[in-house]
Order: sequence, then structure tokens, then C-alpha cells
Amino acid sequence: MPQHSEPGDVPAFQDLYPDDFSWCFGCGRLNPHGYHIRSFWDGDETVCRFTPEPYHIAIPGFVYGGLIASLIDCHGTGTAAAASARAEGRPINGDPPYRFVTASLHVDYLRPTPLGPPLVVRGRAREIGARKVIVEATLSVEGQVCARGEVVAVRMPDTFLKPHPER
Amino acid sequence: MPQHSEPGDVPAFQDLYPDDFSWCFGCGRLNPHGYHIRSFWDGDETVCRFTPEPYHIAIPGFVYGGLIASLIDCHGTGTAAAASARAEGRPINGDPPYRFVTASLHVDYLRPTPLGPPLVVRGRAREIGARKVIVEATLSVEGQVCARGEVVAVRMPDTFLKPHPER
Repeated sequence: MPQHSEPGDVPAFQDLYPDDFSWCFGCGRLNPHGYHIRSFWDGDETVCRFTPEPYHIAIPGFVYGGLIASLIDCHGTGTAAAASARAEGRPINGDPPYRFVTASLHVDYLRPTPLGPPLVVRGRAREIGARKVIVEATLSVEGQVCARGEVVAVRMPDTFLKPHPER
Repeated sequence: MPQHSEPGDVPAFQDLYPDDFSWCFGCGRLNPHGYHIRSFWDGDETVCRFTPEPYHIAIPGFVYGGLIASLIDCHGTGTAAAASARAEGRPINGDPPYRFVTASLHVDYLRPTPLGPPLVVRGRAREIGARKVIVEATLSVEGQVCARGEVVAVRMPDTFLKPHPER
């Protein structure tokens, strides 16, 4: 049965990342300066809602494309972790933990994204491999799709496992 | 003769954008919260140097991919403006002013990007059309290419011309 999850109902995917891998500026819950992107299941799709700050603009009145890329990126790696875990019938925070990094990111900016309402990013895992997951995403405002993206996510390589500089 | 420009020597491309189009979080000189990315000619290439903050991380010790995408994006649109102007033998800040927006962005993350040294983004306009410019870019740290990108930039459409919300 599809799982339907909302903020406050269940933890976000990112809440289940191990502490050592929770420092991402985009989605790390432990990064004090970051966006704290949070992603959830919504049936077979994943969803992330984010309201930009007034200064997250490209042109006055429209959202900065770099933020849109960041949301699709982090929601994509989160979706990869969640979809891999679900496909294997195990939790994201099992052992070993699932954490993906981005091998490639593609974003098509279909129309200017208006600043103000929440941005809604929806993701879907198109391919789930042992080490690679391909996620398709849309970013919408009030039901209108403003950007489409694709993230090729790969299981985190060991070369990333360095101590945190603040410790 | 190829022009070689360094910070302090000549204005950055972004210094020549009209005030109304200088609010971008990535590259707008008037955005008080933004990255203030600055791009220059270096022969037939363009170059942008940016030193991330300690919190711009994906994983401890490595740069956040969303920042990398942002740098390639804004350096790409800047390169599009500069290359279009150069191809026509006119300044970026001529009349009408040249300002491009991103139609699509692609980034391949080739290896983890170490945090610390300046990130060096180099761009080159592969195609220069009347309304569309395709820019290829690399992002390197201490001479090693960590990411490659492509930006399809288009001349800013009139629909972007809305008043700034703070005015």
C-alpha cells in the first residue's frame, strides 16, 4: 500500500541520515546555515515544500535558478535513498545507512518561477540500481510546473568519509 | 588580440548589468545576501573565482553541489552576455543591455570538490545565436577539474521585467 507522509506525521528522509552525513547545506539538519530541505513520501512520489526567502531571486519577483537546482538536487538524492530502501524493504537508516551523492544534475527552466508561494518539488525514481538511482523531478508553484529536473544519484563513495572540520 | 582581465583591472561582466537586473542571489552586485559571483575574460575563455564558506558543504570536507551548480549557472549567463557582446563588437552595457537567463543547466560531478582553496570556473561559448548561447564550463580546484557543466542561456524575456518587491 502506498505510504502517505506529511511533515509532523513521520520523519523526513533527511531526518534518517546518520549524523555524520547530515551537514549538507541543502538538506543537512545539522548545518546551521543551510536550507534544511525535507522530503517525504506521497504515494509513489516524493514531495518537498520550500518557501524561498525574499532575497532568493534571479530577477525581482522570480526565484533564483540556483536555489531551484539545489532543491531538485537534494530532493533527488533523498528520493534515491528512500526509493532504494523501499525497494529493498528496509529503512533508510538501516545498517549500512543509505546516503547518495549526485553524479549529474539536469534542470530545464520552463518558465519564470514566481517568488512568494511555496515551491513544491515532486520526485519519482525512474531507475533503481544497486549503486545508481535516476530520479525525475518537477518544481511547481500553485500547480504550475516551472522547472523539470533529473538527478543521477550514486551511493556515497568511501572517499567522502572524512572527519568534519569542526570536530 | 585576446583580452586578459583580472579583478581590479577591469569591471566584471556583472558590474555592467543594469541596476534593475543586478539582484540575482548568485551574481547580483545589489543583492545583500548573495554570492556576488564575478566573471572576467581570460583570453577566449571566461573565468570566475569563488572561495566557499566553511558551511558550504555537502559532506564534511567537500563542497555542496548546489553551490557548484549556482556558480556554473551564473558564470554561464555572464559568459553568454559577454560573448554575445564581444561577437557583435559592442559593450555588455550597451543599449539595449544584454542580460541572459538560464533555459537549461547540466552539471556532471566528476569527483568530490575539496573545501578550502578557491573554486575556479572557466567558461567558453560554444554557440552564439541571436537569442540563445550555449556555454561549456569546468570547475576546478588547484588545477584538478571536479565538475563540468553546460548552460543554455537565452536573452531575458519581457515577462521577467517586474518591479523589485523592495521598491
